[in-house]
Amino acid sequence: MDYIAGMLKSHPHPVAVEAASLETCLEACLACEQACTACADACLVEEDVHRLVRCIRLNLDCAAVCSVTARVLSRQTAPPSDLIQQQLATCTAFCKACAVECEGHAHRHEHCRVCAEACRACESACRALITATWN
Amino acid sequence: MDYIAGMLKSHPHPVAVEAASLETCLEACLACEQACTACADACLVEEDVHRLVRCIRLNLDCAAVCSVTARVLSRQTAPPSDLIQQQLATCTAFCKACAVECEGHAHRHEHCRVCAEACRACESACRALITATWN
Amino acid sequence: MDYIAGMLKSHPHPVAVEAASLETCLEACLACEQACTACADACLVEEDVHRLVRCIRLNLDCAAVCSVTARVLSRQTAPPSDLIQQQLATCTAFCKACAVECEGHAHRHEHCRVCAEACRACESACRALITATWN
Amino acid sequence: MDYIAGMLKSHPHPVAVEAASLETCLEACLACEQACTACADACLVEEDVHRLVRCIRLNLDCAAVCSVTARVLSRQTAPPSDLIQQQLATCTAFCKACAVECEGHAHRHEHCRVCAEACRACESACRALITATWN
Repeated sequence: MDYIAGMLKSHPHPVAVEAASLETCLEACLACEQACTACADACLVEEDVHRLVRCIRLNLDCAAVCSVTARVLSRQTAPPSDLIQQQLATCTAFCKACAVECEGHAHRHEHCRVCAEACRACESACRALITATWN
Repeated sequence: MDYIAGMLKSHPHPVAVEAASLETCLEACLACEQACTACADACLVEEDVHRLVRCIRLNLDCAAVCSVTARVLSRQTAPPSDLIQQQLATCTAFCKACAVECEGHAHRHEHCRVCAEACRACESACRALITATWN
Repeated sequence: MDYIAGMLKSHPHPVAVEAASLETCLEACLACEQACTACADACLVEEDVHRLVRCIRLNLDCAAVCSVTARVLSRQTAPPSDLIQQQLATCTAFCKACAVECEGHAHRHEHCRVCAEACRACESACRALITATWN
Repeated sequence: MDYIAGMLKSHPHPVAVEAASLETCLEACLACEQACTACADACLVEEDVHRLVRCIRLNLDCAAVCSVTARVLSRQTAPPSDLIQQQLATCTAFCKACAVECEGHAHRHEHCRVCAEACRACESACRALITATWN
């Protein structure tokens, strides 16, 4: 993701929040979206798929929410900070729920272990951005 | 959107909330996503585009959020009602902000007038679903 | 979807293709996206989920592709007609594959029957738009 | 994007194509989606926005297409290789068109220069994956 920093810096408007935290959060959202999409797909062909139904559902929801969060955060024009913070809070909640669920399957499924890590990283990056100073 | 009711009814699990409200909200989210995408694009070629920058930004954000809300609401399996309600609240906030902005341009631009209507309909459908009884 | 026609008409630029076909295709894409998302979720909790793995996968892919097609079609500004036609052809292919798969399960699962209908309607609307006259 | 390799390896089914090329393509799609979203937003507040209308439109289309390509590629279950190759070809076409457009503005706008690079990287990664050997 070598382009994120370059895009943030070249925008005519400055970022509304500390750039390093924003960059970290953008990367975490995109990584979490990918991991959750892949985890849902992997769970689907596990023998114990019946036990993974809630996991698959949360994975798909979490992937969709992370994707939107990355899109909203990529825009520096006229940032509606209240809405962005609400989106970040919602994303934090989806990531946390998905992480908890995946952690429960991590001892049996390596993809759930890796996915839980991606969710925890995204949860924590979103939380850090909420508490960062917004202009 | 003749298939929504058929899909809700044919799912092995019952819906977790009153079906008619859910159907209305699903339709409103998809309609709002389309209207906001189209409004952003229409604003872009208006002569007063400089005044419409915040409108375009909110349109694109709102379209993305509505799309995810529709996706989350389309799943009846293991519904995480707290997360769904949080997604609905976030969607309500984006729709309201986008409606207020579009209403400010509605006397000059018919697409903003129509889009504001779609946003208000979605805002109100999401709000109704939040206050509905969830199983 | 009462807003589509209003949005198409109020855009500063005319549509690049016959408006009624465009409107039909937009509605079909959004309806197919919703039906496929719901069908994937319904399949997941069927007892014969092991037989529905390919169906779920195609459902999720098809939903994603239809969503993008609707977004691309919603923009009337500087329409890149070659790209739009290629997107329509890809969407046609995903809808057809998903329809064929769902039709194979339609006698057992009503949601597959309804979803196949939505896919066939979208396939046919995309195909009609490809062969329509583009400005 | 430290999780992509881990997710690919931990899936119960092997990847249908050479893993390193798939990983490169997944990263390129996610990076291009982000860069295009940010470039559209940056263009919007440039003084010569009237000259950037086609650029913004292609940016938004390209971001949407790349996002779907990443989603389709993240699934290893029952891979429909014909459909995947068609999606890759469509993605290649959108990336190329967006790159050509951004390159035309690169001397004036650094964000267009960076975005064109991301588009070219994604175009080339998609092309490489099309010509790779698929199982």
